[in-house]
Amino acid sequence: MIRVGVVGATGYTGEELLRLLLQHPQAAVTSVSASAKMEHPMALAELYPRFGGRLKLFCTSLNINEVAAASDLVFLALPHGTAMEVAPDFLRLGKKVIDLSGDFRLKDAALYERWYGFTHAAPELLRESVYGLTEYFRPQLQTASLVANPGCYPTSILLAILPLYRKGWITDGGVIADAKSGITGAGRKAERPLLFAEANENLRAYKLNAHQHLPEMTEICSLIAGRPVTMTFVPHVVPLNRGMLSTLYVTLRPTRSSAEVAQVFEDAYGRERFVRVRANGTLPEIRDVVETNYCDIGYRYDEASGQLILVSVIDNLTKGAAGQAIQNMNVMYGLDETLGLV
Amino acid sequence: MIRVGVVGATGYTGEELLRLLLQHPQAAVTSVSASAKMEHPMALAELYPRFGGRLKLFCTSLNINEVAAASDLVFLALPHGTAMEVAPDFLRLGKKVIDLSGDFRLKDAALYERWYGFTHAAPELLRESVYGLTEYFRPQLQTASLVANPGCYPTSILLAILPLYRKGWITDGGVIADAKSGITGAGRKAERPLLFAEANENLRAYKLNAHQHLPEMTEICSLIAGRPVTMTFVPHVVPLNRGMLSTLYVTLRPTRSSAEVAQVFEDAYGRERFVRVRANGTLPEIRDVVETNYCDIGYRYDEASGQLILVSVIDNLTKGAAGQAIQNMNVMYGLDETLGLV
Amino acid sequence: MIRVGVVGATGYTGEELLRLLLQHPQAAVTSVSASAKMEHPMALAELYPRFGGRLKLFCTSLNINEVAAASDLVFLALPHGTAMEVAPDFLRLGKKVIDLSGDFRLKDAALYERWYGFTHAAPELLRESVYGLTEYFRPQLQTASLVANPGCYPTSILLAILPLYRKGWITDGGVIADAKSGITGAGRKAERPLLFAEANENLRAYKLNAHQHLPEMTEICSLIAGRPVTMTFVPHVVPLNRGMLSTLYVTLRPTRSSAEVAQVFEDAYGRERFVRVRANGTLPEIRDVVETNYCDIGYRYDEASGQLILVSVIDNLTKGAAGQAIQNMNVMYGLDETLGLV
Amino acid sequence: MIRVGVVGATGYTGEELLRLLLQHPQAAVTSVSASAKMEHPMALAELYPRFGGRLKLFCTSLNINEVAAASDLVFLALPHGTAMEVAPDFLRLGKKVIDLSGDFRLKDAALYERWYGFTHAAPELLRESVYGLTEYFRPQLQTASLVANPGCYPTSILLAILPLYRKGWITDGGVIADAKSGITGAGRKAERPLLFAEANENLRAYKLNAHQHLPEMTEICSLIAGRPVTMTFVPHVVPLNRGMLSTLYVTLRPTRSSAEVAQVFEDAYGRERFVRVRANGTLPEIRDVVETNYCDIGYRYDEASGQLILVSVIDNLTKGAAGQAIQNMNVMYGLDETLGLV
Repeated sequence: MIRVGVVGATGYTGEELLRLLLQHPQAAVTSVSASAKMEHPMALAELYPRFGGRLKLFCTSLNINEVAAASDLVFLALPHGTAMEVAPDFLRLGKKVIDLSGDFRLKDAALYERWYGFTHAAPELLRESVYGLTEYFRPQLQTASLVANPGCYPTSILLAILPLYRKGWITDGGVIADAKSGITGAGRKAERPLLFAEANENLRAYKLNAHQHLPEMTEICSLIAGRPVTMTFVPHVVPLNRGMLSTLYVTLRPTRSSAEVAQVFEDAYGRERFVRVRANGTLPEIRDVVETNYCDIGYRYDEASGQLILVSVIDNLTKGAAGQAIQNMNVMYGLDETLGLV
Repeated sequence: MIRVGVVGATGYTGEELLRLLLQHPQAAVTSVSASAKMEHPMALAELYPRFGGRLKLFCTSLNINEVAAASDLVFLALPHGTAMEVAPDFLRLGKKVIDLSGDFRLKDAALYERWYGFTHAAPELLRESVYGLTEYFRPQLQTASLVANPGCYPTSILLAILPLYRKGWITDGGVIADAKSGITGAGRKAERPLLFAEANENLRAYKLNAHQHLPEMTEICSLIAGRPVTMTFVPHVVPLNRGMLSTLYVTLRPTRSSAEVAQVFEDAYGRERFVRVRANGTLPEIRDVVETNYCDIGYRYDEASGQLILVSVIDNLTKGAAGQAIQNMNVMYGLDETLGLV
Repeated sequence: MIRVGVVGATGYTGEELLRLLLQHPQAAVTSVSASAKMEHPMALAELYPRFGGRLKLFCTSLNINEVAAASDLVFLALPHGTAMEVAPDFLRLGKKVIDLSGDFRLKDAALYERWYGFTHAAPELLRESVYGLTEYFRPQLQTASLVANPGCYPTSILLAILPLYRKGWITDGGVIADAKSGITGAGRKAERPLLFAEANENLRAYKLNAHQHLPEMTEICSLIAGRPVTMTFVPHVVPLNRGMLSTLYVTLRPTRSSAEVAQVFEDAYGRERFVRVRANGTLPEIRDVVETNYCDIGYRYDEASGQLILVSVIDNLTKGAAGQAIQNMNVMYGLDETLGLV
Repeated sequence: MIRVGVVGATGYTGEELLRLLLQHPQAAVTSVSASAKMEHPMALAELYPRFGGRLKLFCTSLNINEVAAASDLVFLALPHGTAMEVAPDFLRLGKKVIDLSGDFRLKDAALYERWYGFTHAAPELLRESVYGLTEYFRPQLQTASLVANPGCYPTSILLAILPLYRKGWITDGGVIADAKSGITGAGRKAERPLLFAEANENLRAYKLNAHQHLPEMTEICSLIAGRPVTMTFVPHVVPLNRGMLSTLYVTLRPTRSSAEVAQVFEDAYGRERFVRVRANGTLPEIRDVVETNYCDIGYRYDEASGQLILVSVIDNLTKGAAGQAIQNMNVMYGLDETLGLV
């Protein structure tokens, strides 16, 4: 039984981690803490009545030594800029760490200043951390101590386009990613634009080519493509709780046959449990994946023009965060990758 | 042309006032201010892009003298406890005031300490203020200087039951009001329970028999009934932006015929423009009244048992707040009561 | 391993049964059929892409012999009036049946004509069927062949008030139940009032004291109370997918102490796994139970008046349908009651 | 006073026409009819309780002569393929016609077979009809007898890109339009994908490069550009009632300065009442335009790369349908273009 600490339990990602870990047969949550100062420990059943009678733990302010003493592995579900302050301590104490923030996703420390607005506190760990897009970094994850769990947008977008970058079929700048996210993607922050009466019956684009998930995607695409890659990325907020749909516009140069396109995805995901690719012309919807760890991918390919339009859906809190984190934990501990997830 | 000042323009009620006043042929908004300190004046088109190109005013911090100089009538859309601080000044400067908070609705100043948690700052005005349930206080409104615009819950509930209280058909304690409100009813506050991802796909009851609109209702019912009245009142929050549906459970003692019940409502509202009563067994829905100033009332009456179940719907921001306020303004100025409203 | 047939898989209840059975360690879905004529068998992964890669079955038109050959137990998730046509055959073939329609819930066959509009096709089975409100009929369920799984409204309401009826604390007619249901409660019917653009941003009451769940509740209350019981019941439709909140108004005569009230609920549910009762004054919300098999109950009791207001929440598809059905299956097979449910 | 007939009043567009015409000072609705056979005339107050007490008309089955006798102008809010059957008769009877379907939008009759699946019944009228994108065809509208009111997607997309096509700044195939529509855009059809519980908490793309609004857009772009134009168009359905947001990806070749881009939009819309263009980097949201006739356009232009990302929002039922239709009526009758609309 893996003893698991959840640090940052008061956000949506932390809550989803608890939900999933409760049904994991080989993991036990032994410690729950919050990033914010808590006046006094709070029963989880009070914090989350839905877990009442199921998890008799208290959520406390973060005390690194206490969490480390109780845990083999620690999930960090903290705000960006906070995880990098505590991860080194957990690693030093011999704990495995899966960080769900962006703090260890980029290899180039300088990018943090530009995209996150802070100087990285532990740049030496950026080389060591393994990017937790399970389907692409499984060997490295098996021996990882520090996993940088991917962002939700990158998960939905990378799973759809990496097979093409790996083949060298995409020209530079040749990807436009128009992504639509449910509102939990913005976190549990008491901010006006996240209020029900502001977000409901509304729709907006934001951070055009300026979202911090953009360098995360281009770093990974460049790595897989073997050359520097740029892309266009526009995220949108849609009025639903969970789920993300990314529409990707790509033109293959030279054009390929439909059979070749289908084969690329079959090669990439034919044996994967959590990525399901539909036949040409059949598109997935968010409801196909909500509260699951699946990424469903559909596309429409036009042989004549070479235009390939991809639609990729995930649950931003599951495959886009907590679910993939548990999938990574399963890999790190040599367990069946689907434990606790289906 | 009535020169109108809107004080407290940054809340939902203030926004709705502006929307309605923009289409009023006899009123012009001449001053817009916020209750909170604003660093610098903000163009309304920036605060509310929807009004861009239509209202070239700036929203400023409240300056009573400036507002008074620009206005004949002032709408106060301020938080409870704030309106009572500024209304006396506007009255002293000879301005008419329509207050949309609860500050002048109760006649008994002592009730403010119990239900609102503050000592009233202008108790002498409580006698002077006219309760702005238009259909019941029209004569007084015609000469009023200070109007206490009713709360949203009281509007939907009182319009349905006052005809029965007036007839003396309801026994004491004989009303159970189960009310369901859209989320704008809670105001534009950046609080966690009002976040989209908390309120969406959720439903909750709150303040059981403890909501500050309860004494407002019992005061008016007692006045109309001519004796002290108590009632049960449970509000709920439902995941929609605008609208309120109240279900009322009443037993008539002695029982009356269906024709008598129908006649009571015909007498009360047959000549009213903004209250529409359906035939026995036909029920209104929120969508019948959203973004209108109507209150629609339906009921199911069982002659054998005397049980009368009423369903009353309004838009909480229109008939439940800004719309009724403008209806009252029309009455105060001797205008057609529907101006700007249909 | 229990071999399970799901009959009526194309509705929301059937879909939820499949979702839950997929995670049940002691049950395997071996047969999936639809009540409507299907032109040709349809892969479940096509019918429900969310189950793609997890359940490699085909959904076919109902063939009773084939379903019976493949199954030990059959869940009937059919429309009212259809289940009574097929249940007798399954029973004759020695299969256990859990019926999720209303067809076997009422003991008095005459009530079907009044409330459901049909003459019952198998009235002799009404005596045999066991009402599957697990917490109250566990002994009978252990040996049942035919289980009438409770309606969603009755589940949420009965669990809250039966402890009081059992004590004899409720006077006749003394319960008003104002219930609010998510839209899946109405089934997956392509009807105009269920369209998104009609139901969204809307709220409506329907079937005032005329819903077919009313006789189901009064029969059970009468049984537990040991005398005939009547009640008032008004259901509402709220714009959310899943979840139900019932607000119950009761007056205890004579009044009881708060400690006595708390004790009644402790006695009733202190050892139950799926009913959680909050302390006086603490209320549950729908989000506390969605996608779980819990019923959460809160209340506000006023010692002086004896008024007790109860709030009861469930997920209408889980505890209100498929979850409770599986809980009942677990009881029928002597399994841990929580298998597949937490 | 213009006497107006509304044909096809039972859909969302027809309802919105009625809502807007009720507040139009120079138009009176004199006839309301439905495309479907109605057993007997139905009071509008019964069909749409929201209009109760405001419009004392009956909705009847369509009788062309009766409608023509009562009307000067007829709005056709009929399904595609139906309008072309009745428009010729109204024109022959000397009535002006504004058709809100797609039946008269395309100039090339052959396109109807490919995109709409029918042979056009009145191809000779295609030359005569004026495309009702008011801002671009005002002179022709002034004398038009038959107006083809634009589709909702084309309205939001064309208003954003036509200024660039007019300048010749867009290369062929150089526009990718990723559009998101509220659900009323699909009409009031009792179809499963439009059910609340299917569409809520869901999101889907559909008809990739295969939507019938695509040839409508390319015809107009080609006309304005003066050469054949192709584009990529992917529509999505989002869970909200009203509103549409289109995100457009364009690359200017050669690149232009930011000032030049701003000037193009200033030239196009600086004097327009219903198109509001924001400053570079400021984006509109759907809530800025819902229930208004505005189209708000924002963009982010990158001088270095020449990439221009545009965001255009409208209310699909107002500027995208009924509102623009009334705007066109105002133009046809020489009235102030904003009458009844602000």
